[in-house]
Amino acid sequence: MTIRIYDLAALEDDRLFSPYCWRTKLALAHKGLAFESIPWRFTDKAALEPTGFKTVPVIVDGERTVGDSWKIALYLEENYADRPALFGGPQSRALSLGFKNWVDRAVHLPMLRAVLLDLYNGLAEKDKPYFREAREKRFGMALEAFAGDQQAAIATVSSTLDPVRATLTEQPFVCGSAPAYADYILFGAFMWTRSTSPAKLLAADDPLHAWRERMLDLHGGLARKARGYPV
Amino acid sequence: MTIRIYDLAALEDDRLFSPYCWRTKLALAHKGLAFESIPWRFTDKAALEPTGFKTVPVIVDGERTVGDSWKIALYLEENYADRPALFGGPQSRALSLGFKNWVDRAVHLPMLRAVLLDLYNGLAEKDKPYFREAREKRFGMALEAFAGDQQAAIATVSSTLDPVRATLTEQPFVCGSAPAYADYILFGAFMWTRSTSPAKLLAADDPLHAWRERMLDLHGGLARKARGYPV
Repeated sequence: MTIRIYDLAALEDDRLFSPYCWRTKLALAHKGLAFESIPWRFTDKAALEPTGFKTVPVIVDGERTVGDSWKIALYLEENYADRPALFGGPQSRALSLGFKNWVDRAVHLPMLRAVLLDLYNGLAEKDKPYFREAREKRFGMALEAFAGDQQAAIATVSSTLDPVRATLTEQPFVCGSAPAYADYILFGAFMWTRSTSPAKLLAADDPLHAWRERMLDLHGGLARKARGYPV
Repeated sequence: MTIRIYDLAALEDDRLFSPYCWRTKLALAHKGLAFESIPWRFTDKAALEPTGFKTVPVIVDGERTVGDSWKIALYLEENYADRPALFGGPQSRALSLGFKNWVDRAVHLPMLRAVLLDLYNGLAEKDKPYFREAREKRFGMALEAFAGDQQAAIATVSSTLDPVRATLTEQPFVCGSAPAYADYILFGAFMWTRSTSPAKLLAADDPLHAWRERMLDLHGGLARKARGYPV
């Protein structure tokens, strides 16, 4: 049975931009599980209410409903243990949680700054007032002030990712010789930016660029086929 | 047979302060391998020459000599595969390499800034001119200028470690329910600061503080027994 995922959309139903939803979709594809996106907007609170969750991703797998991308990854690993592993063991799972906390807390913010105004302009009209109010409250300033100098934000993204760049000169994926969940964690952030902004975050000769190309090709080009800007 | 490790010392033979040597010593203890430190100073180039390496740690394990803390970890995992695992599998090893690159490139520099002048003052006299010249060349400024405001450096250490702090609220060790090599990677940096400076880097209620206490107790209190300042 096809798993359904509530998937954050911008103006167009197929401009799916949540980094967390991308983690989940790539994890589903990694497990070889068929899924269908249900486009959802920030202000569609009522549509999500039956699931019991307030944020996406949420997956509906037959009788079971699971929210939060990390909990979904644990759910998939446990319930589809006979399929390709997202972690491959408890130590990898623990280290992936650490990597997730680093991406969430150190990488996401500079990446958001680099694309924020493009992202805002591309939202569904009904979502714009909500997004502006919620984010300006969180940042303590106007979206435009938080976004600041885009080139400076892009430079911060590049320097923040320097340790991953070093790792990718020694192995093709964050997880080693083959991609696994930690790759999807970081790649989700690049799908966030790719789907919302024409900003070029990586130089063509950056090892991260080559890694992102490999990630775009995975699982039949799932990510590359998604609506977004050339990167 | 006891493994010998060339181990960076300050003024006193037992003030062993290299973060990389600490990674190696804790990896040896994790494997249950007996080892003996050979105190070594930056200017003891001749003493290291027979090994073929220019920096420490270097281990001598019978007929085999291995340098570079990461390569030593791989060597131990491969050659003592029947003993407790440092990685537990290829994905954990790959993720540990990523964590190492993050600690080396994002954590070490602010930690060094926080203790730099104490570290310098505690060196063997013969090492001081070498250290000052080499580091001032690397930093492009006087040691005192690079060290700057110690409290600001300590605040940067704390904010840089925020993702690990979050992880340690969910699991007792970086590697999950038990310590393994990635824990030693980060803990090595705390042994660097503990052995050289009375600076307090962590508040008593910080989850990182509790983790560091657990690490100090491992392997019969190997790290806690080492010469250093109360932390």
